[in-house]
Amino acid sequence: MMDINQEIAKLDFTKAPKGLYEPIGYTLEGGGKRIRPTLALMACRLFGGREEEVLPAALALEVFHNFTLLHDDLMDRADTRRGRETVWKKWNANTAVLSGDEMLIEAYKLLAQLPAAKLAQVLPLFNKMASEICEGQQLDMDFESLSLREVSIADYMEMIRLKTSVLLATALQIGAIIAGADEGQQRAVYEYGINLGLAFQIQDDLLDCFGDAATFGKPIGGDIVEGKKTFMLLTAYKEGGDAFETQFTALRTAANQDKIRAVKELYERLRVRSCAEEEIVRLTNRALAQLAGVPQNMETERLRQLAQQLMNRKS
Amino acid sequence: MMDINQEIAKLDFTKAPKGLYEPIGYTLEGGGKRIRPTLALMACRLFGGREEEVLPAALALEVFHNFTLLHDDLMDRADTRRGRETVWKKWNANTAVLSGDEMLIEAYKLLAQLPAAKLAQVLPLFNKMASEICEGQQLDMDFESLSLREVSIADYMEMIRLKTSVLLATALQIGAIIAGADEGQQRAVYEYGINLGLAFQIQDDLLDCFGDAATFGKPIGGDIVEGKKTFMLLTAYKEGGDAFETQFTALRTAANQDKIRAVKELYERLRVRSCAEEEIVRLTNRALAQLAGVPQNMETERLRQLAQQLMNRKS
Repeated sequence: MMDINQEIAKLDFTKAPKGLYEPIGYTLEGGGKRIRPTLALMACRLFGGREEEVLPAALALEVFHNFTLLHDDLMDRADTRRGRETVWKKWNANTAVLSGDEMLIEAYKLLAQLPAAKLAQVLPLFNKMASEICEGQQLDMDFESLSLREVSIADYMEMIRLKTSVLLATALQIGAIIAGADEGQQRAVYEYGINLGLAFQIQDDLLDCFGDAATFGKPIGGDIVEGKKTFMLLTAYKEGGDAFETQFTALRTAANQDKIRAVKELYERLRVRSCAEEEIVRLTNRALAQLAGVPQNMETERLRQLAQQLMNRKS
Repeated sequence: MMDINQEIAKLDFTKAPKGLYEPIGYTLEGGGKRIRPTLALMACRLFGGREEEVLPAALALEVFHNFTLLHDDLMDRADTRRGRETVWKKWNANTAVLSGDEMLIEAYKLLAQLPAAKLAQVLPLFNKMASEICEGQQLDMDFESLSLREVSIADYMEMIRLKTSVLLATALQIGAIIAGADEGQQRAVYEYGINLGLAFQIQDDLLDCFGDAATFGKPIGGDIVEGKKTFMLLTAYKEGGDAFETQFTALRTAANQDKIRAVKELYERLRVRSCAEEEIVRLTNRALAQLAGVPQNMETERLRQLAQQLMNRKS
């Protein structure tokens, strides 16, 4: 099995002008789970393809993902990512804009290495996914200025489908296409990816409240302090209604740790925690059910394990 | 002959989320010379292709060009463009980042409409051009923090080749490819575009100093006030050396109109004006010479006229 980190390390961004390319190399060195290229490789092997064939697309997906992080960190004014300074913070905002743009173009350069017939199949899917991620980021930003009653859980699920799930799903579908899988099989892995992504994001929302700071890697309660409209907060409003909103609003001026403690208590009382846990199980099972429609081999088993691992993860 | 403005107007950006797509429609409605898609159509017809075949790529080039303007205006903090508020000014910086990203993706969506065999030929060229434009923008920004002696005229010519010329040249080459022109012919129109672009940018630099405010459309002397390293300023330093730099630096605190008047006088005295005029003629003739290597028909004549018109333009 190919070492994706080694393949990413082979990408050369030491060229001139340094001000443009250096932040790209820096961003890609930052690590991360490399889950998107790994899914593309897994799907390709699942359907009997050779991983070398899908590699350019797998790398394109990882470069694209890191481009979205680079620009998102600029838009969110996030200071750190994976324990290191973000690009806009280390350099400046203009560098983040332009090096991000170049990074998006670099993703398309990798994609252009596919053979003509595959490229013509893959490019439209990649483009659609890329637009959907921008739409998801826009919805996420739009939600910030809306009140709790203006964002339904369905709205939230659609936002995270766009912002998180479609990239995982498209990675899997591209792997399937490169291996020559038929449309039904492509749809099965795509839907596996969609549900896996939704479960993953809700798990993220849950861990932000009820995770263990030591294993989670970030301080607990960040979403609560920010008042971010997560699955947790929206479920609390759905269960607790205006009474919850009044209590939540009253905590606005509380010290961060007091606010986190109080909101977590409200979440427990309104059964938000178990509601999230049940939703994660339900979505994971929906992901797993999709795997009945694809060949059964070692990769199918790995995809099953991945879903189980993500469901039980602590970080 | 196809009406390119009508084709651009057919692109639909009224979809949701509005916050993402509306600024794209706004940017494309802003007008402009539409020179890049026009060049693609002309090159396609020149080599006997049908303009419908090149249309998706022609539109991709125009959308891409407008994406670069959108992000450049953000990076330069420019308030207006073509007499209207820029996107970051009308909305905000985050909107400019994200809608710009989506606009770049939209360009690739248009490109993806090409038939598979053409797409495989065109995408790598488009990607190369896109990277080169980012490199040109980076160099342009890098030049700002360098002194006059650190930027040679050759450096400047390379910057404008990247920032301005390669897009015109690639538009022509893509038109030629769609029409099935051979590599020598592709190179001829590409080089025509490179030289046309260089002449165009130097003409821009010249008009900014010696144009007529009424026809130029912008106030005269903007580059002088900003201290922008244009062909004019770099030539003045080349001719006048450190003595010129001392005089130029001394004008730093002068009122804008006094500075403009004084610098224009220095330019006249150092023969910078005629130097620029001669360079424009030389580059235009180099562009025209390339047209000897392509079929002679109505389009060749139009490309000749275009070069002449740009050389004699007042706006």
